[in-house]
Amino acid sequence: MPTHKRILNIGIVGLGIAGASMIPAIIDHPGVRLAAASTRNKERLEKFAKDYNGETYFTIEELCESSTIDAVYIATPTEFHTEHVRIAAEAKKHIIVEKPLSVTLEDAEDMIEIAERNGVQLIVGHSHSFEPPIQKMREIIESGELGKVLMIHNWYYNDWLYRPRTPEELKTELGGGVTYRQGSHQFDIIRLLGGGEVRSIRAVTGIADASRSTEGNHSVFLEFENGIAATAVYNGYDHFHTTDLTFGIGEGGPLTNSNVYGQSRRLIKDTKSQTDEVALKVASGFGGERSKNYKEAEKSHPFFGLTIVSCEKGDIRQHPDGLIVYGEDEKYVVPILKEETGRLNVIDELYRAVVEGEKPVHDGRWAKANLEVCIKAIQSSKERKELYLDHQVPVQSKVGHSI
Amino acid sequence: MPTHKRILNIGIVGLGIAGASMIPAIIDHPGVRLAAASTRNKERLEKFAKDYNGETYFTIEELCESSTIDAVYIATPTEFHTEHVRIAAEAKKHIIVEKPLSVTLEDAEDMIEIAERNGVQLIVGHSHSFEPPIQKMREIIESGELGKVLMIHNWYYNDWLYRPRTPEELKTELGGGVTYRQGSHQFDIIRLLGGGEVRSIRAVTGIADASRSTEGNHSVFLEFENGIAATAVYNGYDHFHTTDLTFGIGEGGPLTNSNVYGQSRRLIKDTKSQTDEVALKVASGFGGERSKNYKEAEKSHPFFGLTIVSCEKGDIRQHPDGLIVYGEDEKYVVPILKEETGRLNVIDELYRAVVEGEKPVHDGRWAKANLEVCIKAIQSSKERKELYLDHQVPVQSKVGHSI
Repeated sequence: MPTHKRILNIGIVGLGIAGASMIPAIIDHPGVRLAAASTRNKERLEKFAKDYNGETYFTIEELCESSTIDAVYIATPTEFHTEHVRIAAEAKKHIIVEKPLSVTLEDAEDMIEIAERNGVQLIVGHSHSFEPPIQKMREIIESGELGKVLMIHNWYYNDWLYRPRTPEELKTELGGGVTYRQGSHQFDIIRLLGGGEVRSIRAVTGIADASRSTEGNHSVFLEFENGIAATAVYNGYDHFHTTDLTFGIGEGGPLTNSNVYGQSRRLIKDTKSQTDEVALKVASGFGGERSKNYKEAEKSHPFFGLTIVSCEKGDIRQHPDGLIVYGEDEKYVVPILKEETGRLNVIDELYRAVVEGEKPVHDGRWAKANLEVCIKAIQSSKERKELYLDHQVPVQSKVGHSI
Repeated sequence: MPTHKRILNIGIVGLGIAGASMIPAIIDHPGVRLAAASTRNKERLEKFAKDYNGETYFTIEELCESSTIDAVYIATPTEFHTEHVRIAAEAKKHIIVEKPLSVTLEDAEDMIEIAERNGVQLIVGHSHSFEPPIQKMREIIESGELGKVLMIHNWYYNDWLYRPRTPEELKTELGGGVTYRQGSHQFDIIRLLGGGEVRSIRAVTGIADASRSTEGNHSVFLEFENGIAATAVYNGYDHFHTTDLTFGIGEGGPLTNSNVYGQSRRLIKDTKSQTDEVALKVASGFGGERSKNYKEAEKSHPFFGLTIVSCEKGDIRQHPDGLIVYGEDEKYVVPILKEETGRLNVIDELYRAVVEGEKPVHDGRWAKANLEVCIKAIQSSKERKELYLDHQVPVQSKVGHSI
């Protein structure tokens, strides 16, 4: 681990699930310091002050007035991103904004321009291409040892639609549903592995449960400019789960309750009102009773479904200890340290951009390109035809740096 | 099992792998009798006469002159199908012809018309939608208990390209490569489950090994007229195998040597000439030293890769004992008798068509529709665009009859 020239002070804006889950990475990264938080939730602020001895504020404006802070992590709901990015950028704070960046390409472009105008970095994360197994796949692809990539497939069947949701997560026009919320991860993974520049898309999205009337499944076909084919299949209706195919490991590490069938759907059916459902979700935020211990959960790298990369001379998929490479003469495990995490990579990408001057992969234009794929997936399904993409960008920099 | 009004006498034309593999089904079906065979291979004819006490002929013309014979099973190479179907039809024999029916839509249409003109049934098989697990999936879909179908996915990774091949199997223009030879099975399965009428296709096919210069992998996206989405992913380069995801069960039942990595590719690399490779393949035919005991191999229903059907209220996939249904409240196994086989269903479809007057599912027009999907998959990849289909037909009849 190289010496760190400078320590960046980071403030977290919003202490829901996204905000809480980033705390361990900020603490672990040797180049940054968890310096402040803002939220309107007074209890969370008090707990934050007690646990981390950081500055606390009710609003992002107050937090951005603090001269201690070098960068902010914006973990507020999507609809506030444009305003919050503007406030941070104009206060000359570097920015990590939680995905999705926005629901429209126009908002994405506004945020990109305001960050550029103010000379601050804008990184969008955490998304799943930051995860060490995906980064390691990219590294193997770039090494050329398996020849050219032929095709990339990601299949994810789970209970997404029946986890406790805020109302906007179930409204497509507000960026809800699996295509916006989860497709964005699939496309992020696939674009990193395929080189970034998607040429065309053909998709069918589905709304199968009228009581949760947003996309609950999709089948998406992508072709890249370089000829690589990819599919992203998602089904969030809590029937079959791809954890059956991924060593019993999901996004949050090994499953502890995989023997209970359909429990997410049952919990939601038993939840009386939208208020009760939101309360369930809020309880998963910082300090809540359903809050995960993100440090403890990471006993394995997350499996965002089943991803299989086929190259001319071999295939790659995830293994509980890292990756399995199916090469020409043998198959072998490429181990990945458990200490590396996707969220640590988010923080590191910010650090390298700000301190080392490296061009980040997951900048605003990368996120805008992911968003374009989400938007056109839904549009392709409606119009029942193939669509071409206009805002794609290539993968910018090499991966696999050591922190 | 109903009484059989009439016994059909069947003659087999060609005793390669396809011909040999149909023998047990002809023997097992109570409504038909294995009555004759024709092949230019004298040793095979002698063995056939000895084992089954049937009539033997060198040519299809001679076999079709026999007044004993009611129907023929044409298991000759694809390039002879048009001629052999004509000979059989003009001799007023009903016909099962091995898939693929032909390499061009024009040849398919010729065979359909000649069978119609002569008033004989033309059934194309064995293909994998005849398999009992796929038939049972269709039955569950038709029952409506899981609601409408949302999407159907079939993924198959195996060693197809490196199994011993005849030269035409490695030439796309002769119907070789995985898209024609294996895609035809995937599309047959998917079309049966999705209702038959594919609206459009977008595909990318790959040729990654210059020494076997035909399609070795593909990624295919289909949308049906009824809105169902489907993908067919195939990789025959002997790296990752989907048997890892299907309980270690492949097309020929449980694997016995899955611990040897890359052995198909190694065998082919060690094979000195095309003649040696053809000899390896020939040895797998009737009476050959590499010939399978098709009766013994069927300890489990074949898994043609991993097929997952998602409906509004549940998902279905194969299980070693039949199917697993992931329903609204529970998941459960739907058992399927091991005695039922896909090839028995082929014979039964012929029997029902000829004796009961039922319209068969897998007739010439069904096979032509499968062929159209194969042809347009390759064309879509070349032209890099979505294509629309013109020769699709719906699933004709109910499945799940008892023999």
